[in-house]
Amino acid sequence: MTDAELHARAVSVAARAYAPYSEYHVGAVALMRDGTVLEGVNVENAAYPLGVCAERTLLSGAVVAGFRPGDVEVVAITASPCGGCRQWLYEFKVERVVFPSGGELVARTTAELLPDAWDDL
Amino acid sequence: MTDAELHARAVSVAARAYAPYSEYHVGAVALMRDGTVLEGVNVENAAYPLGVCAERTLLSGAVVAGFRPGDVEVVAITASPCGGCRQWLYEFKVERVVFPSGGELVARTTAELLPDAWDDL
Amino acid sequence: MTDAELHARAVSVAARAYAPYSEYHVGAVALMRDGTVLEGVNVENAAYPLGVCAERTLLSGAVVAGFRPGDVEVVAITASPCGGCRQWLYEFKVERVVFPSGGELVARTTAELLPDAWDDL
Amino acid sequence: MTDAELHARAVSVAARAYAPYSEYHVGAVALMRDGTVLEGVNVENAAYPLGVCAERTLLSGAVVAGFRPGDVEVVAITASPCGGCRQWLYEFKVERVVFPSGGELVARTTAELLPDAWDDL
Repeated sequence: MTDAELHARAVSVAARAYAPYSEYHVGAVALMRDGTVLEGVNVENAAYPLGVCAERTLLSGAVVAGFRPGDVEVVAITASPCGGCRQWLYEFKVERVVFPSGGELVARTTAELLPDAWDDL
Repeated sequence: MTDAELHARAVSVAARAYAPYSEYHVGAVALMRDGTVLEGVNVENAAYPLGVCAERTLLSGAVVAGFRPGDVEVVAITASPCGGCRQWLYEFKVERVVFPSGGELVARTTAELLPDAWDDL
Repeated sequence: MTDAELHARAVSVAARAYAPYSEYHVGAVALMRDGTVLEGVNVENAAYPLGVCAERTLLSGAVVAGFRPGDVEVVAITASPCGGCRQWLYEFKVERVVFPSGGELVARTTAELLPDAWDDL
Repeated sequence: MTDAELHARAVSVAARAYAPYSEYHVGAVALMRDGTVLEGVNVENAAYPLGVCAERTLLSGAVVAGFRPGDVEVVAITASPCGGCRQWLYEFKVERVVFPSGGELVARTTAELLPDAWDDL
């Protein structure tokens, strides 16, 4: 799948978000190195700080399925990742992160998304 | 599946946790009203506050799969849920929560786990 | 200060909350064992899960000021604490938690707020 | 105060961290535009994801004290900020963030720390 196809699928997946508080639906899709495609959406909570972003439901789903950091080739998201999710993308050593920015679809490394990263991995 | 069987499966699932920082592996299993069984594990991050507990990877996985609050009958966990996860179990209107406490397996409602709950749902 | 006075002060403090996303302003006040009174408010973030509740800004402020778990006698809040904050109140061994519930001001222990608590302290 | 002085104070403040789980003590100091200096430390919880980083206890303390986004000139930290805290530094429109990286003290803007930032402020 191309980056554009992965992003299109993330847009489609976003409809399943549970976001009754913000009504801001986010979708994320991962292409694993073995070809598997996984999905994530944001899941909010009435106590806002307890919610979980789409990138984190995606990557935690990957762990539940048996994957580990290093197994993810691409993550495509319907929006630029928040800082917290950048730290997860970094932890999982995702090779390429695809999202819309400035009106176009961009691809970034986690080092580009989190420059001068604190490194305790 | 009985509560004991669901708990036994949660124990087995815990092996897939990504918990390199605490080395504390937690597993959680949900029995949905339609009979589906789903799994969750804790996923930690080098920046500890960004981690996600097993109950939340479980329930966010349920949302990704198309389920909604009200669809979960039982959640069985390898340990007593933290307060943050109790708020999630409450949001998802889980009917029965099963976990070890005081040396035995107990079953609790979310109202029992979160008395005097703040209600903004 | 009485519980009602502490609660009244929490109501007053809530005006300082930074809650542009939910517009739900929460205030919290702690009476320390040495007589010091401390304040907290919720602080939200555009990425909702990164926000911090009033009870947690309150207790983290206490730590910055040099206090430790066991030093807090009462925490009064303008609303029932979410599960995540109950876990903090439990960690800090707060003796009494005061908040409105069912139309009156109630006082609870952390054991009452978090029954069957997971104990790794 | 110079950046080096602010960082030295953050190092000193870190001793007050409540970090019994990671034993990783972080300190943060803010110089507000009006000259006020504020402090923060990380505060952990037995349930790791409920903890709060030093930068967030610092900035939430600023809010409790009456400050708002735009009021912070410099934040100095004893370590590179995690992604979640970068999102907070961005939300608060902090002008300059000072921390050690690659063996020296660096100063960064929040735009440099969070390139292609998602903007919903």
